Amino acid sequence: MDQLLRVMNFNVSADGIGAGEHQSLEQPFGLGQAERLFAWAGATASWPRRTEPGGSRGLDDYFTRDFPRNIGAEIMGRNKFGPQRGPWQDHEWRGWWGEEPPFRTPVFVMTHHERPSFTLSDTTFHFVDGAPAAVLERAREAARGKDVRLGGGVTTVRQFLDAGLVDTLHVAVAPVTLGSGLRLWDSPDELLDRFHLEIVPSASGVTHHLFWRR
Amino acid sequence: MDQLLRVMNFNVSADGIGAGEHQSLEQPFGLGQAERLFAWAGATASWPRRTEPGGSRGLDDYFTRDFPRNIGAEIMGRNKFGPQRGPWQDHEWRGWWGEEPPFRTPVFVMTHHERPSFTLSDTTFHFVDGAPAAVLERAREAARGKDVRLGGGVTTVRQFLDAGLVDTLHVAVAPVTLGSGLRLWDSPDELLDRFHLEIVPSASGVTHHLFWRR
Repeated sequence: MDQLLRVMNFNVSADGIGAGEHQSLEQPFGLGQAERLFAWAGATASWPRRTEPGGSRGLDDYFTRDFPRNIGAEIMGRNKFGPQRGPWQDHEWRGWWGEEPPFRTPVFVMTHHERPSFTLSDTTFHFVDGAPAAVLERAREAARGKDVRLGGGVTTVRQFLDAGLVDTLHVAVAPVTLGSGLRLWDSPDELLDRFHLEIVPSASGVTHHLFWRR
Repeated sequence: MDQLLRVMNFNVSADGIGAGEHQSLEQPFGLGQAERLFAWAGATASWPRRTEPGGSRGLDDYFTRDFPRNIGAEIMGRNKFGPQRGPWQDHEWRGWWGEEPPFRTPVFVMTHHERPSFTLSDTTFHFVDGAPAAVLERAREAARGKDVRLGGGVTTVRQFLDAGLVDTLHVAVAPVTLGSGLRLWDSPDELLDRFHLEIVPSASGVTHHLFWRR
């Protein structure tokens, strides 16, 4: 079986928006209502940051449970890693996720401003400059035969889609309209020339969109 | 997280029938149309016995992909293991699955007629006599912290349901009516006093029923 490049548990609004335009330390998604996009995931039993017992085990749980399965590396854009822009002012910022990031694999952060790799618990962050295809090649090697997750954000997913490198996408569309922000698509139909699409409504109100290459 | 007892990818007809009454070597399910119950699984990319590349990566694939995940042991009834009844005539029958059974864990076969354990590739079959709760305890221990899959058939699933031991069920209901055979339920509503139920239709025509304990 090939090593896939997979977008997983990626959240957008009904109008295709995954993040606001003004990210900050207080608003990692640059959106006042970001939690309305990903509340479905936090309600599941398999949500990695769950602290209380319980949680749902219906359809949504299949998606959160699948998150680590057979994944050997993640690629993310710099804006998923942190709110800074331009050259690094210091190296104290080590991501949004505290001392135990949920990735537990090598993570390749795409940036024009390189900095030394570092490890937090089971996750090692590497900072790489390069075209999507070259970064994917490095991530595939690090994944040692397992799949590679494309973590986002919106701009990074679009970049890899435009380069024809994405094998499967799972996008959860929330029943909320945001109006402005960074847009994954105007309509999911834009991808139908290259992907099969199965649309699956969930009891939580989100609509899971599953795409795989034609 | 607790060790769950999970029914996974269990197939029944629209009228709740999972197997015929007259199992034979030629008809492991005792049904002439058994393939109409599980065709959805064979069409997915993650089907373990897939020999050709390709296969779908939509909703159905989440279920076949989930099959081995975090599973440390399986429990099955004797009729899932083979067509013989009564005392073993010989020990040459080693299951339906050839030299590489898809379980890849210890498997506990419930029977009043014990026989020595044996190993095929990554799967070891044990033959155990006992009440469901006692068999589950042995399987949990063998699973070393992972979940236990309850493999079926119908009679065995019913036995564990009646004993209140099942934590989650995924039952795929096929759009075919069989009329007679071994019945998991007259209606899935029978389980609603003890389980949450989310019903998810799939593009393949089956309807996935996801149950988890209240």
